[in-house]
Amino acid sequence: MPESHVTLTPLGGLGEIGMNCMALETEQSMILVDCGLMFPDVILYGVDVVIPRMDFIVSRKHKLKGIILTHGHEDHIGALAWLVPYLQEVPLYGSEFTLRLALKRLQERNLDSHVKLHPVRARERVDLGEFAVTFMPVCHSIIEGFGLGIETPAGRIVHTGDFKIDRNPQGAHATDLDAFRKFSDDGVLLLLSDSTNVEREGFSLTEQEIQDSLDEVFADAKGRILVTLFATHIQRMQEIFDLAAKHGRKVAFTGRSLVTNIEVAKDLGHLRFNRENSCDMEELAYLDDSRIVILLTGSQGEPLSALSRVARSEHRQINIHKGDTVVMSSRFIPGNTRAITRVINDLYRHGASVLYEKVQAIHASGHAHQEELKIMLDTVRPKFFVPVHGEYRHLFKHAELAVSRGIAPERALILENGQPVTLSSTGIRLEEAVFAESILVDGKGVGDVGQSVLKERQILGGEGLVIVLLVQDEFGTIVFGPSIQSKGFIFEQHFSHILEDAKCIILDVMEGNPGCEAYKLEEKIRSSLRRFFRKVLERDPIVIPLIARV
Amino acid sequence: MPESHVTLTPLGGLGEIGMNCMALETEQSMILVDCGLMFPDVILYGVDVVIPRMDFIVSRKHKLKGIILTHGHEDHIGALAWLVPYLQEVPLYGSEFTLRLALKRLQERNLDSHVKLHPVRARERVDLGEFAVTFMPVCHSIIEGFGLGIETPAGRIVHTGDFKIDRNPQGAHATDLDAFRKFSDDGVLLLLSDSTNVEREGFSLTEQEIQDSLDEVFADAKGRILVTLFATHIQRMQEIFDLAAKHGRKVAFTGRSLVTNIEVAKDLGHLRFNRENSCDMEELAYLDDSRIVILLTGSQGEPLSALSRVARSEHRQINIHKGDTVVMSSRFIPGNTRAITRVINDLYRHGASVLYEKVQAIHASGHAHQEELKIMLDTVRPKFFVPVHGEYRHLFKHAELAVSRGIAPERALILENGQPVTLSSTGIRLEEAVFAESILVDGKGVGDVGQSVLKERQILGGEGLVIVLLVQDEFGTIVFGPSIQSKGFIFEQHFSHILEDAKCIILDVMEGNPGCEAYKLEEKIRSSLRRFFRKVLERDPIVIPLIARV
Repeated sequence: MPESHVTLTPLGGLGEIGMNCMALETEQSMILVDCGLMFPDVILYGVDVVIPRMDFIVSRKHKLKGIILTHGHEDHIGALAWLVPYLQEVPLYGSEFTLRLALKRLQERNLDSHVKLHPVRARERVDLGEFAVTFMPVCHSIIEGFGLGIETPAGRIVHTGDFKIDRNPQGAHATDLDAFRKFSDDGVLLLLSDSTNVEREGFSLTEQEIQDSLDEVFADAKGRILVTLFATHIQRMQEIFDLAAKHGRKVAFTGRSLVTNIEVAKDLGHLRFNRENSCDMEELAYLDDSRIVILLTGSQGEPLSALSRVARSEHRQINIHKGDTVVMSSRFIPGNTRAITRVINDLYRHGASVLYEKVQAIHASGHAHQEELKIMLDTVRPKFFVPVHGEYRHLFKHAELAVSRGIAPERALILENGQPVTLSSTGIRLEEAVFAESILVDGKGVGDVGQSVLKERQILGGEGLVIVLLVQDEFGTIVFGPSIQSKGFIFEQHFSHILEDAKCIILDVMEGNPGCEAYKLEEKIRSSLRRFFRKVLERDPIVIPLIARV
Repeated sequence: MPESHVTLTPLGGLGEIGMNCMALETEQSMILVDCGLMFPDVILYGVDVVIPRMDFIVSRKHKLKGIILTHGHEDHIGALAWLVPYLQEVPLYGSEFTLRLALKRLQERNLDSHVKLHPVRARERVDLGEFAVTFMPVCHSIIEGFGLGIETPAGRIVHTGDFKIDRNPQGAHATDLDAFRKFSDDGVLLLLSDSTNVEREGFSLTEQEIQDSLDEVFADAKGRILVTLFATHIQRMQEIFDLAAKHGRKVAFTGRSLVTNIEVAKDLGHLRFNRENSCDMEELAYLDDSRIVILLTGSQGEPLSALSRVARSEHRQINIHKGDTVVMSSRFIPGNTRAITRVINDLYRHGASVLYEKVQAIHASGHAHQEELKIMLDTVRPKFFVPVHGEYRHLFKHAELAVSRGIAPERALILENGQPVTLSSTGIRLEEAVFAESILVDGKGVGDVGQSVLKERQILGGEGLVIVLLVQDEFGTIVFGPSIQSKGFIFEQHFSHILEDAKCIILDVMEGNPGCEAYKLEEKIRSSLRRFFRKVLERDPIVIPLIARV
C-alpha cells in the first residue's frame, strides 16, 4: 500500500499578487483553498478580470469535498462565479461575513443555487473527507479572516491566508497566535505563508496608530470630512463612526458597494452605529459642515466612483466646500496612481485639502511585514516551507527569510502556479507541472481573448486602422472606390491630403497589377500603404484592404 | 510712459511634472526658460511625447533674445526639436554639458543649424536685451545644472530650475547658495521654485549616503555587480567607477545612450576613469566575476534596454550568473512599475539578487525636500512667490510652505500653464489666459492626434472592431457578402459561430429594409450588431458596415 501523501497544486497567486487558488488532494479527497481573481495589468487591453484555469478542478470534481474561503476579498473569492457553474451544490466554508460577500457575487449572476454555505466559527474544526480543517482567526484589512490548520493523511499543514499580526489589536480583530500554536504543537509538516509584504522591514502600522492619526485629523478639521476606503474594510469604518461620535459629527455614506457592505456588516453585528452618529445624505443640508463626515467610494480614483464625480463637480448631492478635508484611507494600487492624483489635484482646485498614505499615516497594510512573518514562522515551526501570495521576488525573499529562521534551505521551496508538490511524512517531491496559464475574461467571453487578439488590440490602440474598399467587376474594372476610412489614425478633417495620397498609391497598385488575384492585390495594397504611412508619419496602423469582385 | 514691467507666461510644467517651459517678456525682449517634453500617460494611446504649444513663442520670435536651458534632462530640453524649426540661429544658453546634450538631440534630426550655442560658466552673467541672467550652480541628478538670477526692468527674479541642497556635497556638485544670496542681496521681486518633492518631509538623502550604501553593496557582493541608472547621472557613474577601483573591480558599460553620455562627460572632464578600472565588454570573459561591474541601460524596465534583454536571456553578451547582484540605482517612474517588477522577477528566477530604492538606500532624489525648499525661500526672501514644476497639489502645498516662511498669502500665487502674470515694481497682475493645451506627438505627426482620435484608439484598444462588407447591384440584390472581418475582437477560429450569427442579423436587416439608402442601412446594421455583441458578449466593439452599390 502506498504511503500516505497529499498533493498541493497552486493554480493562482504564486508568481503574482492576486488570483489566489490552491488545490489539496489525497487519493480520495480534494479541497480548494480560495478561488480569487486578479484585476488586469493596464497592458491587457479591455480585459476585465483574470482568473485561474478551472479545468484542473473540474476534472476532479467527484472528489471535491469543499471550497474554503479564507476571507472575503476579491482576490480570494472573485473567481467562484467562473467555477461553480461546473459544480452542483458545492459546499463553501468560511466565516459568516466572507460567505455573505461570496453569496452576493454569485447572486448577481444567478449562480447561488450551485453552492451550499457552511459558515464556520473561530477555532471550529470541520471534517472534509480525508482532510480536517481548523479555522484560526487572523487580522487583515477585512473582518473575519481565517488562517487554516489542515490535517492531512501525510501530516499537518498551516495556510496563513492573508494576515498581519497587529501588536495592539482592537476588539476581536487579532491574529489568534494561540490557535496557531496549539495546532502546531503536534508538529507541522508544511507552512504556506503570505509573502505580499516580505520586502517591508519591521512591523506594519497598527490599527491603533491609524486611529490615533485619524483622531488628529478629526480634531484639526474645521469643515466637512470626506473619507474613502476599501468598501470591505469594516473595522476602519467602525473607527470612523466612533471618531465621528467622539467629535460630535454624523456620518452619511454613499456609493453602492459601500452601502451594501455596511448593511451586511451591521446586520451581522460587526458594525455598530445609530441615529446619534449617522444620517442620510439628504440630512446633510441641515447640518453645519463641522458636524459632517461622509463615507464614500473612490479610493482608487475609479472614474465613476462617488469621489471622482465630486472632484469633477458631477456629483448630484455633494460638491466640495472650501475647507473640506478629504481622507483617502487606503493603499494606492500602482496602476491607479494617475487616476488618483488627478482626483487629488481637482479636489485641491476646489479648495479641499487631501490626506493620503504618502503624506500622513492614515492607512495600515493588511499584510505582515518581516518581523510579523518571523513570528508566524517561529510559532508554527514547520518542517517544510512554501511561500504563497507574491510575485517571484517576494516568494524568493520569503524563502530566504524562512531559512534565516531555521528552516533547512532544501526544505524552503519556491513553487509557481501549476507546479504541484507531493508531501508525505518522509519527504517532498515535485510533480510534473500542470497547465496553469491564467484565463482572461472580457465581458461574457471567457478565454476567447488570447494573445493574438490582445496583440491586435495593442496595435489598434496605439496606431489605429485604415480600411480600403474597392469593388471590381468581372473584367477587373473598378466599379466602386477606392474609398478609405480610418479609425484612431489621424484627424481626417485636417489631414485629408494624406488619405488622398493614399488613394493614388492604391490606384497605382491596381494599374500595375492587372489580372492579379484579389488576395494578392490586397497584400500589395497593404504593404504599399504601410510603407507610405511609415514614411510620411512614422506610424504603422493596421491596414485592411477589402476587394470585392462582383 | 508705462511703468517698467515683465510678463511671465508658463507654457508647461505648472500643473504637471515635466514639459517645463516659461516665457519672460518685456516690451522689447523675450527670453525662454527651458523647452522640455513630457512622456505621456499610459492612457495616451500610441502618443510618443507631449510638448508645449509653440505658437505663443513663434508669434513673438522677433523679440526672442535667447533660450536658457537650466540643465540637460529631457523635461527641460526635449521639446527644442519642435520649436527651433521655426527659428533661425536662436542662441541657446546653458552649461557646456547641457548644451552638448541638447545639440545631440537636434543633430539627430538635422536641426543643429537652427541654433547657436553659448556655453556659460558658473556665476557668469549674460545680457539678453532688457534682461540679464546670472547662472548659479545647483545640485541635481545631472551635472552642471543652473538656477537663474534674472534681472528685469521690473526687478529681480530667481528661477531655481530643478534643484536639491546636498548637505554634504561631493566635489563640484553643490547648490551655490552663496551665489543665490549675493544675487538676492539687492532684493528679489519673485522666486520661482521647484515643487516636485514638496510632499516629502526633511532633507533628501545626500549623495554621500548613497555612496556609503553602494560601498556596502560592493563589499558584500561575491559575483558580478550590474548597475542601471539614468543615462545622464554622471555623478553617480563616477561613484561607481571610484567604488570599482576601491574594490578591485573593472567597469564595462553597454547601451547606446549610456555609452554616448559617458564619452561626452569624459571628453568634458566630468568623468575620470582609465584602463585600470574600466574594460571593454569583450574583456569580461577573461575576468573573474568578483572583479566585474557592468553599467547598463534599463532602469525603467524598457523592453529593448540592455537589462530587460538580460532578464529575458536575450542579450548577446550578458547572461545572469548565479550570485550576480543587480543594483537599480534610480527612481521607478510610476507608470513603469509593472515593467520594472517583471524584470526584477526574471532576474531572481535566473539566480541574481536585485537591489532597488524600495529595499535599500541606493538612490537619492534630485529634487529638494521640504527643509531644502525652506532654505531656498529663506535665502532668496522674495516679495512674490510662484511655485513651478509640479502638479496642482504640489504647487498648492509649496505656496502654503512659502506662506509658512513669511511670504504674504496674497503674494504666493498658484499659476497654471497658460496663465500669464505681469510684475512691476509695485505689484502683480494676472493677465488674460493664453491657450496652452499641450500638443501630442505621434511619430512625425504633431497635433494630428487629438481627443477624437484618442477616443477611437481607446475603444479599438479595449474592444476591437468588426467590419461588415456587402455589395449590392442597382436592383438592391446582394452580389457580394455579407463578409465579416474582425480585429482585436475575438479569436475567430474558436468563436466563428458568433460571426455566423452576426451575418444572419445583417441579412435580416437587409430583408427588412428593401430600398433603403446605403447610409441608413449601415446605421441599422451597426446598431443591430452592437446590440447583439453587447447581449452575447457584453462587449461593444467599433462596428464598421460598408455597403457598396455598383
